[in-house]
Amino acid sequence: MNYTHGGDIWTAEAGGAGGGGASPLLDFSANISPLGLPAAAAGALRAAVGDSSLCAYPDAFSRALTEKLAEKHGVPQASIVCGNGAADLIFRLCLWRRPGRVLLAAPGFSEYARAAALAGAGVSWYDLAPPAFRTGEDILAHITEGTDMLFLTNPNNPTGLLTDRALLLRIAERCEATGTLFVVDECFIEFTDAAPLDDALAAYPHLVLLHAFTKFYAMAGLRLGYILAADAAVCEGVFATGQPWPVSTPAQVAGLAALSDKAYGERLCALIKKERVKLKSGLERLGFAVWDGAANYLLFQKTGLLDLKERLLGRGILIRSCANFRGLDASYYRACVRLPEENGRLLAALEEVS
Amino acid sequence: MNYTHGGDIWTAEAGGAGGGGASPLLDFSANISPLGLPAAAAGALRAAVGDSSLCAYPDAFSRALTEKLAEKHGVPQASIVCGNGAADLIFRLCLWRRPGRVLLAAPGFSEYARAAALAGAGVSWYDLAPPAFRTGEDILAHITEGTDMLFLTNPNNPTGLLTDRALLLRIAERCEATGTLFVVDECFIEFTDAAPLDDALAAYPHLVLLHAFTKFYAMAGLRLGYILAADAAVCEGVFATGQPWPVSTPAQVAGLAALSDKAYGERLCALIKKERVKLKSGLERLGFAVWDGAANYLLFQKTGLLDLKERLLGRGILIRSCANFRGLDASYYRACVRLPEENGRLLAALEEVS
Repeated sequence: MNYTHGGDIWTAEAGGAGGGGASPLLDFSANISPLGLPAAAAGALRAAVGDSSLCAYPDAFSRALTEKLAEKHGVPQASIVCGNGAADLIFRLCLWRRPGRVLLAAPGFSEYARAAALAGAGVSWYDLAPPAFRTGEDILAHITEGTDMLFLTNPNNPTGLLTDRALLLRIAERCEATGTLFVVDECFIEFTDAAPLDDALAAYPHLVLLHAFTKFYAMAGLRLGYILAADAAVCEGVFATGQPWPVSTPAQVAGLAALSDKAYGERLCALIKKERVKLKSGLERLGFAVWDGAANYLLFQKTGLLDLKERLLGRGILIRSCANFRGLDASYYRACVRLPEENGRLLAALEEVS
Repeated sequence: MNYTHGGDIWTAEAGGAGGGGASPLLDFSANISPLGLPAAAAGALRAAVGDSSLCAYPDAFSRALTEKLAEKHGVPQASIVCGNGAADLIFRLCLWRRPGRVLLAAPGFSEYARAAALAGAGVSWYDLAPPAFRTGEDILAHITEGTDMLFLTNPNNPTGLLTDRALLLRIAERCEATGTLFVVDECFIEFTDAAPLDDALAAYPHLVLLHAFTKFYAMAGLRLGYILAADAAVCEGVFATGQPWPVSTPAQVAGLAALSDKAYGERLCALIKKERVKLKSGLERLGFAVWDGAANYLLFQKTGLLDLKERLLGRGILIRSCANFRGLDASYYRACVRLPEENGRLLAALEEVS
């Protein structure tokens, strides 16, 4: 069995990294908020353990949560479906849509291609041109009547680059003309200054927005994501494509509580913005090429430096090797933006080993 | 969007049942242990909320949990794959196997047919003959080379009836000859005196056993199930068919802790055995036909009595109408076995309304 993502502290630690288990690994490989669970979410979880709410089946419709999300995004509650993390929803979307052909941007998140393959689809690639890796107008020519689905991540993962809103709307327009289900993965949009596409949903029935609590609220272990779509057929189809109880009660109660903690998000965004600038210039000082990431992670590269991940593991630090991303190679790495002292440790370790 | 299962206290309560919200519904519709979470599981969950373990991605391989399960079932760790509840694994099994035709027993759990349909399979029915609803030798003739998968629940849900081990092994034998993946859903086997088929796995590579923590450990809200299969292709296929992180960290830590609480299971089985006898004779005294259920629920029926669920809802009690089970009709009901005082309340309410 194979695992190809960031955040695999389990394998790294089982392999004896982290100084023989004396101290846990410092994980820069998964792009998770360094502030930990919002206090309100932790409190709600403790309360749920204390009463009997974990014994009953979860609410299949995540009613309390979708009500709050509808408020947040300014869309009807019926336009929201929750899932067992965003990854669950990627698989449901593909299995419901049964696309013949899916267009994906590379480099990008590998679960889109896995889900497309499971649904029996062929994959066409929109290869982002190095070294800029920018999504450009040329993507429009790739979207044809034969394109049943298109996934775009905004900001892109692993580059962190944002795509202009004007271009996204032109793509959405094009997808309406070609009948392409256009999934914009906005899992990292809250870390950026860019506006989400919520207000465009009503005008584009083929548009689906994908969100996760995973990263922003540091809830990766709880598994919670959701989609927004104006077309009722999309929401009903995704809900019906799979088991009726994908979203656990802990995910529902923690997600609901997290949404009410406005201060958490403000503190997090201020921190990430400041630290990202420092980390970027630190990496550049060490001779890395660094992309202009807008979220809580940075893509960086140094030609010929192929074993940086292994070198850092020896110092108890885990980063993401981008060797298995289409369009990148073993000289590319991704690191999450964490707390000041932790980013300092990463830069100090890099200085020693690179 | 549609919901067709037991345990939907959310809809029932949203509908204003339970005496206007003054007291919560007493739920006999989902077959969940009335003892609540094992104390060790609650403790492990509290600890996980307190440290930072919910922030990181879950262990995709549920390593600690499968190690403990391997011990419990006496099988290699590689023979176990965990999922987001047993329902997740039913969908993964079908989507991996891509059966042309699936054989299902009726009445039975509706998710098998939903998963088969999603995987593009046709469904053939083995209709259990009323009034006995017993699985008999005649099932063997239904298993042909065209049968790609067979699901059997032992004990059956909703009847609670056990199928003889000797017959199960003959079915397994037949499935080896026809190349049929034979999934025995043992989600309720621990409530019974019957032995699970663990020791038959090695001899039958087409045999898959399905388990859940949901019912026995009162963890329905946490979503945790697993399969056992000797054939590595089954385990690897099921793991690879879907997202890599189906099992949340709360599910993993609570499941692991629950397995170490031997006393919980003994107390639960003793309670259910005693209470089931009392509930059965109580129902019979009220003129219901009651099947000889071996697990923590009972199927009962009275010809012409079609609105019992609604009548009980008015008294804050939720039971499962079996009107939507193939082979049954609106005069059939299922009720879980709960604590003595609660079962007494059910019988008293039934006496008043039936």
